[in-house]
Amino acid sequence: MSLLELPINIPEILSPYLPLKDDLVKDKPFVTLTYAQSIDARIAAQKGERTVISHEETKTMTHYLRYHHDGILVGTGTVLADDPGLNCKWGKNCFENSPKPIIIDLKQKWKFTGSKLHQLYLNNQGKNPIVVVANEPINKEEHVEYLTIPTTNGKFDWGLLLNALKTNFNLNSIMVEGGAVVINQLLTESHLINSLIVTIGSTYLGNLGVQVSPPRKVLLENVNWWRGTTDAVMCANLKQLK
Amino acid sequence: MSLLELPINIPEILSPYLPLKDDLVKDKPFVTLTYAQSIDARIAAQKGERTVISHEETKTMTHYLRYHHDGILVGTGTVLADDPGLNCKWGKNCFENSPKPIIIDLKQKWKFTGSKLHQLYLNNQGKNPIVVVANEPINKEEHVEYLTIPTTNGKFDWGLLLNALKTNFNLNSIMVEGGAVVINQLLTESHLINSLIVTIGSTYLGNLGVQVSPPRKVLLENVNWWRGTTDAVMCANLKQLK
Ligand SMILES: NC(=O)c1ccc[n+]([C@@H]2O[C@H](COP(=O)([O-])OP(=O)(O)OC[C@H]3O[C@@H](n4cnc5c(N)ncnc54)[C@H](OP(=O)(O)O)[C@@H]3O)[C@@H](O)[C@H]2O)c1
Ligand SMILES: NC(=O)c1ccc[n+]([C@@H]2O[C@H](COP(=O)([O-])OP(=O)(O)OC[C@H]3O[C@@H](n4cnc5c(N)ncnc54)[C@H](OP(=O)(O)O)[C@@H]3O)[C@@H](O)[C@H]2O)c1
Repeated sequence: MSLLELPINIPEILSPYLPLKDDLVKDKPFVTLTYAQSIDARIAAQKGERTVISHEETKTMTHYLRYHHDGILVGTGTVLADDPGLNCKWGKNCFENSPKPIIIDLKQKWKFTGSKLHQLYLNNQGKNPIVVVANEPINKEEHVEYLTIPTTNGKFDWGLLLNALKTNFNLNSIMVEGGAVVINQLLTESHLINSLIVTIGSTYLGNLGVQVSPPRKVLLENVNWWRGTTDAVMCANLKQLK
Repeated sequence: MSLLELPINIPEILSPYLPLKDDLVKDKPFVTLTYAQSIDARIAAQKGERTVISHEETKTMTHYLRYHHDGILVGTGTVLADDPGLNCKWGKNCFENSPKPIIIDLKQKWKFTGSKLHQLYLNNQGKNPIVVVANEPINKEEHVEYLTIPTTNGKFDWGLLLNALKTNFNLNSIMVEGGAVVINQLLTESHLINSLIVTIGSTYLGNLGVQVSPPRKVLLENVNWWRGTTDAVMCANLKQLK
């Protein structure tokens, strides 16, 4: 399916929130948190229910954001529920423009083989993924690059992961697209996050939905809003804790 | 404290969502649901914690909305937590412009005497309230008008209440300002609601906050967004269930 035109004022609104050349010298990638939610802060109507929240024009914006990032990171909940493509349909060369998928799948629940990512990779329409695991896999899948990360009680250090993604894979910018577990964690790691871009669709998904709400207050600054046909998009930076 | 200027384009944006003269003939008042939430759909950081969410300019919008309504309805949770004023500081004559406060306090937990509403009423800066109760009070407070509503298992019929507010008190338009219990209920009574106006402040209050999220999906139509300095405001109608 082809994309709608990018709304004309989107590039100008997004530009202060996109990765800069400057960031190439830092020891961690530029990180953008981005997701689409309902008014009531739900990113899916139920776990595992792929839910339309935003207008097609803001979907084009997502592909425009992917165009500007080297990597795209999601949790295992998202790949298992949605089987997403994560490629970039904006611009001319789909393979080249597509960010490198990074899947947090510590317990190796997900299979690349047979997935939409696999299909796109075989068709030259997307890159092969990096799968972040807790232990070196016994059976490695073809075309998957594995990154083993030390864990304590099933948790890992996000700073360490981001550093490894920059150092080992040369990814200078990463957009995090979800799901809720990943985003709720990263919202409280403000020192690691460079930009926040949230699409708000004009619907209520209801209190059985999967929600984004961090475990504590998170303050924002440098806020700007874009107003679409039915959605609004908030761009911001996370206020750094002193 | 005086109000900031009303943003110049607010009246035009709000006008399709405000009560019309036409509605005077219906058997229920025109009802506007309105509240301010964080990105993560919280209307307070904790129950009982009065929380600043929106910019001062959208606070002025709230007073402009109050100016356009005959009544202003809140639940007992809100009056107990916030001791709100609920009057209208927009326009010249504060007493005359202020909507009639309507407090849903079935179990008579709240006292008018000594409240901010009481103070404002004594100073001619607000109206005396209607308190909606399940049983005729034994000790009636001075200046309070009581409306007794039939209940079944502690619940009442919102249609019946709104009809009584129109018939007995001549209120042709009511804005509902909160809190979460009241709004979550009314979001699922789409046939009773004429307009929805939600301010979204650019902050996360976190998952311990009081949230607005109805028990099921609620679809919206005729959506428009206003973009403020730090907030966005969504205006919409609730899609009627067939
Ligand atoms: N609207 C949108 O923009 C959007 C975007 C993406 C996803 N979604 C929706 O979100 C839902 C999925 O969200 P979700 O919250 O269930 O999944 P998720 O955040 O994609 O993945 C969560 C899982 O990833 C692993 N994980 C992530 N961070 C970890 C960490 N720091 N340490 C250890 N493990 C970590 C854990 O797997 P284990 O449990 O195996 O340890 C965790 O359960 C789906 O319904 C999808 O449709 C919506
Ligand atoms: N940001 C905003 O725009 C905004 C606006 C208003 C309030 N708030 C916040 O919201 C919080 C209060 O919210 P809340 O959800 O606790 O309170 P609420 O909705 O104001 O009041 C809930 C209470 O009202 C009574 N009630 C309401 N509807 C009823 C019904 N249909 N049947 C029976 N009883 C009904 C019940 O009282 P009983 O339990 O006594 O039966 C119920 O517990 C406060 O922290 C306040 O700061 C924020």
